[in-house]
Amino acid sequence: MDGTLKVDLNCDLGESFGRYTLGQDAEIMAYITSANIACGFHAGDPDVMAHTVELAKQNGVAIGAHPGYPDLQGFGRRGMVMGAGEINRMITYQLGALDAFTRGAGQHMVHVKPHGALYNLASQDFETADAIARAVQLFDPNLILVGLAGSELIRSGTLLGMRVANEGFPDRAYLADGQLMPRNQPGAVLTDELAVAENALRLVVEGIVVNGERIKIATLCLHGDNPKAVHNAIKVREVLLAEGIEICSIA
Amino acid sequence: MDGTLKVDLNCDLGESFGRYTLGQDAEIMAYITSANIACGFHAGDPDVMAHTVELAKQNGVAIGAHPGYPDLQGFGRRGMVMGAGEINRMITYQLGALDAFTRGAGQHMVHVKPHGALYNLASQDFETADAIARAVQLFDPNLILVGLAGSELIRSGTLLGMRVANEGFPDRAYLADGQLMPRNQPGAVLTDELAVAENALRLVVEGIVVNGERIKIATLCLHGDNPKAVHNAIKVREVLLAEGIEICSIA
Amino acid sequence: MDGTLKVDLNCDLGESFGRYTLGQDAEIMAYITSANIACGFHAGDPDVMAHTVELAKQNGVAIGAHPGYPDLQGFGRRGMVMGAGEINRMITYQLGALDAFTRGAGQHMVHVKPHGALYNLASQDFETADAIARAVQLFDPNLILVGLAGSELIRSGTLLGMRVANEGFPDRAYLADGQLMPRNQPGAVLTDELAVAENALRLVVEGIVVNGERIKIATLCLHGDNPKAVHNAIKVREVLLAEGIEICSIA
Amino acid sequence: MDGTLKVDLNCDLGESFGRYTLGQDAEIMAYITSANIACGFHAGDPDVMAHTVELAKQNGVAIGAHPGYPDLQGFGRRGMVMGAGEINRMITYQLGALDAFTRGAGQHMVHVKPHGALYNLASQDFETADAIARAVQLFDPNLILVGLAGSELIRSGTLLGMRVANEGFPDRAYLADGQLMPRNQPGAVLTDELAVAENALRLVVEGIVVNGERIKIATLCLHGDNPKAVHNAIKVREVLLAEGIEICSIA
Repeated sequence: MDGTLKVDLNCDLGESFGRYTLGQDAEIMAYITSANIACGFHAGDPDVMAHTVELAKQNGVAIGAHPGYPDLQGFGRRGMVMGAGEINRMITYQLGALDAFTRGAGQHMVHVKPHGALYNLASQDFETADAIARAVQLFDPNLILVGLAGSELIRSGTLLGMRVANEGFPDRAYLADGQLMPRNQPGAVLTDELAVAENALRLVVEGIVVNGERIKIATLCLHGDNPKAVHNAIKVREVLLAEGIEICSIA
Repeated sequence: MDGTLKVDLNCDLGESFGRYTLGQDAEIMAYITSANIACGFHAGDPDVMAHTVELAKQNGVAIGAHPGYPDLQGFGRRGMVMGAGEINRMITYQLGALDAFTRGAGQHMVHVKPHGALYNLASQDFETADAIARAVQLFDPNLILVGLAGSELIRSGTLLGMRVANEGFPDRAYLADGQLMPRNQPGAVLTDELAVAENALRLVVEGIVVNGERIKIATLCLHGDNPKAVHNAIKVREVLLAEGIEICSIA
Repeated sequence: MDGTLKVDLNCDLGESFGRYTLGQDAEIMAYITSANIACGFHAGDPDVMAHTVELAKQNGVAIGAHPGYPDLQGFGRRGMVMGAGEINRMITYQLGALDAFTRGAGQHMVHVKPHGALYNLASQDFETADAIARAVQLFDPNLILVGLAGSELIRSGTLLGMRVANEGFPDRAYLADGQLMPRNQPGAVLTDELAVAENALRLVVEGIVVNGERIKIATLCLHGDNPKAVHNAIKVREVLLAEGIEICSIA
Repeated sequence: MDGTLKVDLNCDLGESFGRYTLGQDAEIMAYITSANIACGFHAGDPDVMAHTVELAKQNGVAIGAHPGYPDLQGFGRRGMVMGAGEINRMITYQLGALDAFTRGAGQHMVHVKPHGALYNLASQDFETADAIARAVQLFDPNLILVGLAGSELIRSGTLLGMRVANEGFPDRAYLADGQLMPRNQPGAVLTDELAVAENALRLVVEGIVVNGERIKIATLCLHGDNPKAVHNAIKVREVLLAEGIEICSIA
């Protein structure tokens, strides 16, 4: 790591649907550099997608796709048993759909980050990760694949010669082996905004160590669907900037 | 009309879904020049779309999008009250989704033809037609808008400076004013393959007259979801070719 | 109208879905006597339905079904063209689904009120109204059909010999002919809680006059999905009770 | 086993959806004694359900529910990670929906058999099995729970004091331990109708042995969605009847 440290701040957005509003998209946009926009399978609909792309454009935030399982009721958080081909094609479908709105707004998609249970499975299962990575690469070889730092998704993208971005979670505690502490353990989720910000700083400065290898964190995930989201985002920015870290998209 | 008469033969395809198979896509591909492929809202799914694009590619058939209402149970044949903005964005979404598979197969989309109740409404309602046409134009200004000959959809595309293709239905009887005879009238649907083929020939040679204006038919719709579809297609080709009419895509 | 005036206070509830929360169901339950519970087509899911039934039971609120069009994205507010048979059967399906949760909680369904665009169409179109009424009657002849006061839905239920309940809207202005003032006209929606309460009182005391006939209002609809909903409910109760009107379910 | 041997012949039916027709429901009805009718989640819709219930009634076939995962594209054959509560409530919802049509036709539901991936999971996972069994029992304690012979589903129903029916598959080969041979092994699926019929006879006469215990087969599953289905059903009946076995529903 030479010169100034940099990091991207990403957030899952566009997760409203029809009559249902979720998240504080308009508020959080001011504090992030990359938006992962839901593509209509686990959340989002054509109207929400068009609106969210427009919001990102107005805020100069990089646009990425956030594809998930076809399970609106489960919000893409329930695992589904799908073959590699099925996964590949449902990713392709969702990338195309979001890309249509992105291009229509005169923008271009920068990255892709799977959502929820698909993200988790792609972190650990190479076949799933590879199916996703190949869909992304075929769609546009310049797209950056965002995945859990040190995960199978990052590995599969790297093997394919793709651009990848290792992601860290400032509001989650990490185990010594670089894995996220499971949510059901006490202390797994940080709620104090200063603790979140300090965790963010540590992730950027130190990275994480997985299998003895130090991994640089390229992007930090800020959550947008809880009341404290904006406060966390503000505090994270403040602490990072105070340490001279540059906040910019991975584009 | 100078020189050789030409016409495109199109068919609605890719209307299977998951476990459900509909149509004789593989058989009919040999006889058509343009495929209108369902985009996952009224029919089709990512797997079906990928497969149908591949079939079209192998057969040298031009690929187009066939977007419809979000109503799988109703197969897009039930009218839905949607605002122009909603229509515009649901078209954009579907175009993007199909385009992803088309580009992934190294092909490019040539045309767009709305499906079912949306096709019918766009034939008669300018606001709906305009919402569709603008979505298509913004997505790709080279796309050809296919609509009922002499319809509002054709008019809206023309007003926007788009390429349009007037469509005729060989298996449907026409009224003197150029309108399709309503399906509930006796004789509205032609079932004899020779009658269908002769109607096709008449449509190509004479066009139809709407509001006193003679309209050239650029593309003929062959249906693919009935047992006689392939026989009709073969007979239509035979009769057209015997009259020296060139059968080629509108690309 | 002999003796004490009575009125039921109803509210549309259970309109959350999966990760999406809508309405203030727990808060509003204390102030109403009938809950119209969404059945999973325009809103609601099995988990939300079970939870809402339990809430109603705990609050001693009468349980009714609130079936709508199969259009989650449009929240059942977009008209759909469906035949009478289709409507009849989609109502039957939804009644059965809600009834399962209701019986499972040791309760029984008291009433049925269609939702959104279906409610509106059933107010004006006899064929639709009749299709709904027959589904309700076949399911359980004791169910009370709730509809817009003086509407076709009320008329169809009456013709079938069913129990019906004419509904009034305290937060909506009425025209001289007993119709609701269209929402797009100024003053159509009352926002001041006292104005809403006084309108409620007037509806109960005077009823409305449709085609020269005075119609008694059996139930008042309180909306539950805006921030003022609970305040309106409290004020309506306060004003009605102060005038000696009994608030009780239509059961 | 005293006196005459008896067996029920069941078939999964009502798996069409909207425009999509699947199975040979009308043909197979003449040869079976129990119909497992899809409930709208993995297949079926209100129109199909009403029609299938009517068909069963006309043929004197016992009506049962065939609930599945909410995954139309995957036809309920893709596993989904759902909690016990979610499973319980989605079963309740589907039972209510089918019951509405059944009661509307003057019939009553006799049994419940989960579909596809849910059936498989309930065979092996007690928590899932118990969630299903409890939903069925609460809905109607007289309902018969149909599950794979010797499975966790049968065990959970038995523990709850429910009526259960051990099911056998004539067109599937069994391993020595009473388990079905996995489909991916050669010979796992029997295609010759005589082989199927002889397997049916063996299942009825000998039962299967699971964990050293001989289990009586109460119902045989005939598949309805392949071209040979009707031929298999005819041959199975012929062979069973020739051996003096009574074919009647489990009601």
